[in-house]
Amino acid sequence: MVEPGTYDDETLVAEAAEDEVRPDDRIDDERHDEENRLKPEYVRGVRDALDQGDKTAVYDLVEPLHPADIADLIELLDTEERAALASSITDLMTSEVVAELNDHVREVMMEALEPGAVATIAEQLETDDAVQLLEDLDEDDQKAIIAELEPETQAAVESALAYPEETAGRLMSRRVMAVPEHLTIGDLIDFLRENGDLEHDFHEVFVIDAAHHPVGTCALNWILTTPRSVKLTDVMKRDQTLIPVTMDQEEVALMFQKYALISAAVVDDSGRLVGQMTVDDIVHIISEEAGEDALLLSGAGDGDINEPIREAYSSRVRWLIANLGTAVVASAIIAFFGAAIEKLVALAVLMPIVASIGGNAGTQTMAVAVRAIATNQLTRANTRRILWKELRVAVLNGATVAVLIGIAAGVLFSPMMGVVIAAAMIINIAVAGLAGVLVPVIFERLNQDPAVASSVFVTMITDSMGFFAFLGLAVASGLTA
Amino acid sequence: MVEPGTYDDETLVAEAAEDEVRPDDRIDDERHDEENRLKPEYVRGVRDALDQGDKTAVYDLVEPLHPADIADLIELLDTEERAALASSITDLMTSEVVAELNDHVREVMMEALEPGAVATIAEQLETDDAVQLLEDLDEDDQKAIIAELEPETQAAVESALAYPEETAGRLMSRRVMAVPEHLTIGDLIDFLRENGDLEHDFHEVFVIDAAHHPVGTCALNWILTTPRSVKLTDVMKRDQTLIPVTMDQEEVALMFQKYALISAAVVDDSGRLVGQMTVDDIVHIISEEAGEDALLLSGAGDGDINEPIREAYSSRVRWLIANLGTAVVASAIIAFFGAAIEKLVALAVLMPIVASIGGNAGTQTMAVAVRAIATNQLTRANTRRILWKELRVAVLNGATVAVLIGIAAGVLFSPMMGVVIAAAMIINIAVAGLAGVLVPVIFERLNQDPAVASSVFVTMITDSMGFFAFLGLAVASGLTA
Repeated sequence: MVEPGTYDDETLVAEAAEDEVRPDDRIDDERHDEENRLKPEYVRGVRDALDQGDKTAVYDLVEPLHPADIADLIELLDTEERAALASSITDLMTSEVVAELNDHVREVMMEALEPGAVATIAEQLETDDAVQLLEDLDEDDQKAIIAELEPETQAAVESALAYPEETAGRLMSRRVMAVPEHLTIGDLIDFLRENGDLEHDFHEVFVIDAAHHPVGTCALNWILTTPRSVKLTDVMKRDQTLIPVTMDQEEVALMFQKYALISAAVVDDSGRLVGQMTVDDIVHIISEEAGEDALLLSGAGDGDINEPIREAYSSRVRWLIANLGTAVVASAIIAFFGAAIEKLVALAVLMPIVASIGGNAGTQTMAVAVRAIATNQLTRANTRRILWKELRVAVLNGATVAVLIGIAAGVLFSPMMGVVIAAAMIINIAVAGLAGVLVPVIFERLNQDPAVASSVFVTMITDSMGFFAFLGLAVASGLTA
Repeated sequence: MVEPGTYDDETLVAEAAEDEVRPDDRIDDERHDEENRLKPEYVRGVRDALDQGDKTAVYDLVEPLHPADIADLIELLDTEERAALASSITDLMTSEVVAELNDHVREVMMEALEPGAVATIAEQLETDDAVQLLEDLDEDDQKAIIAELEPETQAAVESALAYPEETAGRLMSRRVMAVPEHLTIGDLIDFLRENGDLEHDFHEVFVIDAAHHPVGTCALNWILTTPRSVKLTDVMKRDQTLIPVTMDQEEVALMFQKYALISAAVVDDSGRLVGQMTVDDIVHIISEEAGEDALLLSGAGDGDINEPIREAYSSRVRWLIANLGTAVVASAIIAFFGAAIEKLVALAVLMPIVASIGGNAGTQTMAVAVRAIATNQLTRANTRRILWKELRVAVLNGATVAVLIGIAAGVLFSPMMGVVIAAAMIINIAVAGLAGVLVPVIFERLNQDPAVASSVFVTMITDSMGFFAFLGLAVASGLTA
């Protein structure tokens, strides 16, 4: 890849001759399958070379890969293989590769290095990537590494770490192309020609006033297609989206999506431009945040497949224990009806059906509600309407399922049993529908993350109500007389 | 907002005088709360004005909103209010607003209009937005509307609809800035000045050869910071990512994320440049695809809170019925042990605990596995290692929970009961861990979406195994003798 270097108007770039024409389209080449995953045969080839200790072969296999693909390869290997790989491809292990690694894999790798070595890697990264590298490390390790940084990097990193995790202040890029508002397009182009940092892409120019407040933005394609004499203030876009430095990453991501932004200015309390966020950071956040809910809802915590066993255990077991509690509550209800079950063991056979389907209906509704809350589609302004709608869906579902199971039970056991289980089913599914919306909404109003806590409560409600309704109706109907 | 218009070098733009300085930062203004949602008070204000039939007040309230916010407002109102709103703000109901609407809401709105009116809206949109408008409509409605389109738009729309849904060919923008490779930077700038389509932003210029194949890309900031005499082929980036026109949207999104792309060329079978995809489309896809899993896993289908009742019912009820099937299988196992339960009703009290916790553990593992498969982190190359890891996590979790419930049951019932339930718990959770990984992986190998189908099977396995292990061990241990 030839990057523009510094040119005189008459000099050709020396690197041009070295450029290997490599139109690597990265799909369906000999290393990737059609879904852009590294082929197992390729990975096996690397593994075999590692086993044989053939460092040259390993290097040759890995060298053509994009840094993101090298990171993928590292993630696919196991711990010993990773160490062997790292020692075989030392100059290919660039800071780019490190920045692309999965968090857990990178953490282990950084812990194995001396602070000085980590500092060297961090120096080559952009501030936001360097911060990402350091933020999950031990506080002592962190301090040791920061101490080894150049003063400029040190200041930038410490400034970022001063902001809470997952806020704009932590994640933003401090490198911003900002120009004063009195320039013309021609002035701007000259300025860019002199100061254009060719290593760092930018997509917009921010226009600021004397107090360093952003007053507008200028898209690069506008600059290119507007005559030089026009004033910046005549073409810039004044309608702007400013991100407060304290804004949570999830909200930033939603703003980017909603207003189709490529980049946005980050401002401090006094409205001064302090950095920018760009859409490629957002893309990562969106994927993370949107995918999180499935994991949180099921109590799988971080849910990263590369998580160490210790962490996966500790985050999941606490939810299993919480669910143990709710299961015991449900069992207490069953115990209350123990005598009835003794008389009619068919009750024990059928009761899990009611609880189970109720639980599924509750989970369906809850997944929809949690997603709607996260994407700002379920707010105070439409909660009542949505609740009413979900209740109607639940009753429809309940009635359908009730008819099916009622007929089956009526045939296999007795007509009254059919009626009892059908009635219990409708009640439980209706309750599940209500709980599936109300529990997440209540958590959201209490400023808790609905995805994390709702599941336990919704399950408790549906299990308990399922057993209570079925067994209670069975007794009340005289089935166990 | 002042857009650059056509200028002579010496003429100022007339619109400049009309520009209302409106630095609306959209956070915490009188209409939005700190999470960028429309405030309930504001929405109530709009509702009241609609109730009173005060069209002027409604217009004044809605006029300052960004199109995306007008779309939000429409989504928050109910069906009657929406019709009233639409008639009050006719000229604010731009195609931009329509493009921003939630799919279901927009569908209803389009169905209420004449084909000619829908065609007018479609004409004002970019091809990809127009296609999105039309693709979910009835085939007859669709044909009627397409017939009303201008020939150029008609051709573009029909070409897009020829591709399957959710592929690059359907979603791409046909508007591409592509230039021949023999130009210099200076030629390119002149070309852009003459042909720059000022209404449409672009972020990169694609460089093509004589056969219309992309050979490289040129970022706009490189163009701006490179002297005019340099040849395009000396500065362009040759290392490019090409998207085949048939690629699924989820894979396109993953590629954009992985290689941090802003835009990418879309090519047909013969490698010719046919369009581009840009990151703001991807952002929408990522959010949709990543958030989908929670909904699919729970059987909530589309899971859009704006879904009409009829659709929500039909997509969810089929999963409830499928789960009814698996619950009946589990109940059959209980029935098999009916005699044992009759002798020892404590079995009926405790058995749901084993099934329930097993189900939770299975769901946790499944959520993690599904996400890992979707993000290409769980592939053939590391399945065995991950399976072994998840099994160990499951055994740790199982042992922990087993000890807790074993002690409780041992105290409340009998020591042997404690041992039986503990053993059943470990077995069931271990099985759940294995199933949670294997079931999604198997579906993936069969080219089915793991998120959709896994849940039913994992639940069936954990429920059945839970009851079987517990009741079977109880009988085997002599508890029911």
